[in-house]
Amino acid sequence: MTDNYCVIMGGGIGSRFWPFSRETFPKQFLDFFGTGRSLLQLTFDHFSKIIPVENIYIVTNELYAELMREQLPELHESQILLEPTRRNTAPCIAYAAYHIYARNPKANIVVAPSDHLIINVDSFLRDVNKGLELVRENDALVTLGVHPSRPETGYGYIQSSDTKLGEFTKVKTFTEKPDYDLAKIFYESGEFFWNSGLFLWNVQSILAAFRKFLPDISARFDLGKDKFNTSEERSFIKEHFPYCPNISIDYGIMEKADNVYMLCVDFGWADLGTWGSLHETATVKDEEKNAFLKTSKALTYESTGNIIALENPEKLAVIQGLNDYIIADSGNVLLICKKEDESKIKQFMADAQMKYGKEFN
Amino acid sequence: MTDNYCVIMGGGIGSRFWPFSRETFPKQFLDFFGTGRSLLQLTFDHFSKIIPVENIYIVTNELYAELMREQLPELHESQILLEPTRRNTAPCIAYAAYHIYARNPKANIVVAPSDHLIINVDSFLRDVNKGLELVRENDALVTLGVHPSRPETGYGYIQSSDTKLGEFTKVKTFTEKPDYDLAKIFYESGEFFWNSGLFLWNVQSILAAFRKFLPDISARFDLGKDKFNTSEERSFIKEHFPYCPNISIDYGIMEKADNVYMLCVDFGWADLGTWGSLHETATVKDEEKNAFLKTSKALTYESTGNIIALENPEKLAVIQGLNDYIIADSGNVLLICKKEDESKIKQFMADAQMKYGKEFN
Repeated sequence: MTDNYCVIMGGGIGSRFWPFSRETFPKQFLDFFGTGRSLLQLTFDHFSKIIPVENIYIVTNELYAELMREQLPELHESQILLEPTRRNTAPCIAYAAYHIYARNPKANIVVAPSDHLIINVDSFLRDVNKGLELVRENDALVTLGVHPSRPETGYGYIQSSDTKLGEFTKVKTFTEKPDYDLAKIFYESGEFFWNSGLFLWNVQSILAAFRKFLPDISARFDLGKDKFNTSEERSFIKEHFPYCPNISIDYGIMEKADNVYMLCVDFGWADLGTWGSLHETATVKDEEKNAFLKTSKALTYESTGNIIALENPEKLAVIQGLNDYIIADSGNVLLICKKEDESKIKQFMADAQMKYGKEFN
Repeated sequence: MTDNYCVIMGGGIGSRFWPFSRETFPKQFLDFFGTGRSLLQLTFDHFSKIIPVENIYIVTNELYAELMREQLPELHESQILLEPTRRNTAPCIAYAAYHIYARNPKANIVVAPSDHLIINVDSFLRDVNKGLELVRENDALVTLGVHPSRPETGYGYIQSSDTKLGEFTKVKTFTEKPDYDLAKIFYESGEFFWNSGLFLWNVQSILAAFRKFLPDISARFDLGKDKFNTSEERSFIKEHFPYCPNISIDYGIMEKADNVYMLCVDFGWADLGTWGSLHETATVKDEEKNAFLKTSKALTYESTGNIIALENPEKLAVIQGLNDYIIADSGNVLLICKKEDESKIKQFMADAQMKYGKEFN
């Protein structure tokens, strides 16, 4: 039996993709590209090629338990770890680490978001395997840094150093999303890489890091360390998880630890965090750079650079005289908005709730 | 018993309102303004105040027989006159005239489109009554000319003369839709009026006019003159109606006859022939001149002069950064198109049929 495990984080609400993504149906559950598999399912499919299915975990919010079971019937109930409240990545990762440690204290874990796009899956899996091998032998917290192809302002960056550990390099700093000028400097420097949010570590390394950098979280989980992977886990989590602080693993641990290593990767990666990134990665584009998501029937006239997303694949979009807009038709909401103003969508959703209640969330 | 009759023409397909209006559900059947009554039903409601329901006829295409029965259950089957093929207004009016003549050779008839908007119904009905009184005593073909409120290029115009018949004036010419410069001259002249498409005449006057100006139509119907208003009418029409030429009453008779009179009216009238005219007449507009048709839930940002028409009243429209567009979401089609380019919509519909077949017509 392998010591390799996978944790897929699937609790996000993805409000930036409203109205496609809803509180009741976040983006990781959506089949954005019309492939027949959601982003979550694609992520699962990738990992199941190198990790035994029984070693794959999902952490998600209780709200999405039913959706998870529907989308991933391959998983046993015990492989779906439910968060009773919405926290950030650090509590989510701690929960999974404690659970897996109770099963296998030698576990090597790869942690992955559920809503990212991987183009070259073979290359991706080779890199994951390299990371798993590294952390089997080394007390290292590993992240995958994507070779940047443009001065993207929508991603965080990782700065690597000259200190090597095999193919891996020691990480100097993590940075937040830069403005364009800084992104350009990063891009041209050759030592900055996109922070993919993909992490690898041995379970003992990450638990040690929690105890060192986020002791309030580890102290809380230590209260129930005999209960993980038992019938008492659920009620323990229900009671104690809500006390965890809302903090990201990047901020809470990765930026502070001095055993963080990076593998430079180039497997075609995108964080589908924005409509703009979807436009970048969309596979169905016409000659006028209109990108079609799910939409299979469309007529466009004097229109360029739009994202046209109709949830109903039988529906026809007829678009004339429109440039660089998002047109998203999903359920009981039709959204039309300039691509450059997509950051306002969260506010639109909030306004809708204020005016009409929660029915459009 | 009264000699007054009404003929509502309800056979149009209204393709300019696609996708709201479909071949299977033309605009006259739509409740455009969310009043709970379609344009057809509103037309019926108006006339039923001054004309006995049993004297009200609908002429429509066979395709819409079922819709007619649903929308106007007040009518007996014999009051729905079915055209087996799509012709223009002249054959439609001839059919109704022959049918009514067989019932009552002294009938006075008002003929009306089914898709026009009347604002001041009392004023409208007073004018109709004036017309019915005139044609009872005079061999006159009467039309209602609407006092123009702007140099509209979307309507035909009627030029009146100084020759009077009571309140009515003899018509000098009918003109097609003018360009803007000509429309401005018409508007300022004081002697041009919008052609409302509302006509009044005694049944003998109109039958005489058909015999004089459209003898091929009258000769065709004369073949079955004993069959109208009998059980044989239906099969006679099925056989002979398709031979009628495709010609409008304006072109075929009104422009040629020398007994055409006009009443100048001002009851708030609109031919809902275009999205633009709907925008003009829409009752629900916000401060930015966005007009909402059926749409009851909407958020608009940096957007002015749009027509927002969502068929589903529970659906939310969120529109940002858009000026002077038509946004029409109906059934399996979403249309977004510049208001100034609405004349292209027929072509869009034709393109959709070419590319995908008839499912979107």
